[in-house]
Amino acid sequence: MDIGTLVADARRGRPRAVARLITLVENAAATPGGDERLREVMAAFATASGPEAEGGRGPYGARVIGLTGSPGVGKSTSTGMLIRAFRRRGRRVGVLAVDPSSPFTGGALLGDRVRMQEHATDPEVFIRSMASRGHLGGLAWATPQALRVLDAAGCDVILVETVGVGQAEVDVARLADTTVVLLAPGMGDGIQAAKAGILEVADVFVVNKADRDGAQALVRDLRSTVAPLRGPWRPPIVSTVASKGEGADDLLAALDKHAAYLDESGELRRRRLARARDEIETIALARLRARFAPEGRERRLDRLAERLLAAETDPYTAADELLADLG
Amino acid sequence: MDIGTLVADARRGRPRAVARLITLVENAAATPGGDERLREVMAAFATASGPEAEGGRGPYGARVIGLTGSPGVGKSTSTGMLIRAFRRRGRRVGVLAVDPSSPFTGGALLGDRVRMQEHATDPEVFIRSMASRGHLGGLAWATPQALRVLDAAGCDVILVETVGVGQAEVDVARLADTTVVLLAPGMGDGIQAAKAGILEVADVFVVNKADRDGAQALVRDLRSTVAPLRGPWRPPIVSTVASKGEGADDLLAALDKHAAYLDESGELRRRRLARARDEIETIALARLRARFAPEGRERRLDRLAERLLAAETDPYTAADELLADLG
Repeated sequence: MDIGTLVADARRGRPRAVARLITLVENAAATPGGDERLREVMAAFATASGPEAEGGRGPYGARVIGLTGSPGVGKSTSTGMLIRAFRRRGRRVGVLAVDPSSPFTGGALLGDRVRMQEHATDPEVFIRSMASRGHLGGLAWATPQALRVLDAAGCDVILVETVGVGQAEVDVARLADTTVVLLAPGMGDGIQAAKAGILEVADVFVVNKADRDGAQALVRDLRSTVAPLRGPWRPPIVSTVASKGEGADDLLAALDKHAAYLDESGELRRRRLARARDEIETIALARLRARFAPEGRERRLDRLAERLLAAETDPYTAADELLADLG
Repeated sequence: MDIGTLVADARRGRPRAVARLITLVENAAATPGGDERLREVMAAFATASGPEAEGGRGPYGARVIGLTGSPGVGKSTSTGMLIRAFRRRGRRVGVLAVDPSSPFTGGALLGDRVRMQEHATDPEVFIRSMASRGHLGGLAWATPQALRVLDAAGCDVILVETVGVGQAEVDVARLADTTVVLLAPGMGDGIQAAKAGILEVADVFVVNKADRDGAQALVRDLRSTVAPLRGPWRPPIVSTVASKGEGADDLLAALDKHAAYLDESGELRRRRLARARDEIETIALARLRARFAPEGRERRLDRLAERLLAAETDPYTAADELLADLG
């Protein structure tokens, strides 16, 4: 199938075209910037969507909601709950389950995709798992492009679910309009991690498994952590039991409130500009990086590494030599 | 203090010089590649250490051991246990506690540095926490350079402790000669995450808090996960109660065994070559990225982002325009 047909079909929301384009993105992540077909796809999406000012949908038509948290807090179940909630509102929903912990396996193994299977036959729900296929930075490069595919497919909401504590939270926050950080009682000192870094990225906190021991203590602990925060937005704390669908309305209300805040404060535009900057810069760097590889330059890097290992050079000088090749 | 004196003092193992150099690395991480003093430092280290073939220590004299795992598994306590164990052998020990979850706070908050305080006055132990200071990729760039500082300071062993599930594991594995993945019973479905991606990076598994319920089941589960692995090295599973120092000898034995395997198989050289490649490439990319920023180019990226947001361009074309500026 040629790119034109594929793009047209994806824009009509045909699941197979969407799936094929995301596969194209995933495969291209192995050599970021190296796939000219992808370039064609992105150009087609951009021109077809048209400037918002002229009544087009704009390139970021979808509301992007990131969900993150440690393994076991119930991210997939919560994502499933949100899919149902947005479907009840008649929204078209995209889901990207990003799994940075399987870079070597060549396939996302988030395990409980099964919990989302009830949506497998819903033509208004697109679910896709992505792993990074071993390339340093591959996922950082591929995820925004997969978002663009889902966006072009007319998704009103895109849920980006990511496993992880640490960099993953930050990465998802850079992609999302709204970042939801999930916690659950009895997960070790998750709150300690939360205090360390999650606070800055969370727009909404969810305490899932709220029917378990320790849930109220966790909410209290979070509340006292959030209390001293200044600034126009203080992250609300929502209690849920996602496996039973409990708290879905509260979560949706919190998300809507944040969406309204983003709009009114101008923060939405700021975030999306930052996202656009990241996107451009990531592609530019990937294209530069690709220049290291072809035409024997990969071997050149090998030789420089050998010399560094033998203490015949230092890393900066080696980097300069590598760059000198770029001309 | 000039760079020459600082470098000479660091090479003599003077803690204040080491600390100042790591601060230099950390600050430079905000504008990777932009600090010419750091370049001078690295060049001085490289030439002073001298090629191994000529009796020098080589640039990677230290054995680098990465410790990773979810929050709450007891990484800091285990690091403390290993410090004691290596100190009993008379080794000089460096510790880098890398906290990718606090990129915005400008200071690592790993919380329980306190558990390592017994080593605070030991001149043969260097402990340093690092956070990434908000720069995309800043930590990836800074950590190898901080390793070089500790290496030059004559550390025999460097323990790199990182918080996280996901990308953090992979990053630490790329830096370390040996990667230790810590798990603990009762941490939710940590084993599920383990199966997804940790297997490929773990050289040694530690089940910490082995005196708690569920520890044996966790060991069994891990064992059956590891069993089908082929290849010359099958990760051993060590049970510890780090808070009581239990299992220290077993862990040390497992680490020694892996070190011997690395040497005999040639895998050590392969890993260090990969590390050298990453290091060179990361610096090269950082230097390129720095070129986007100065002389009004930051504003250029802003303008491109505005146009992308307005659907007047696509991300590839925008990236090309950014690159065209580099000449």
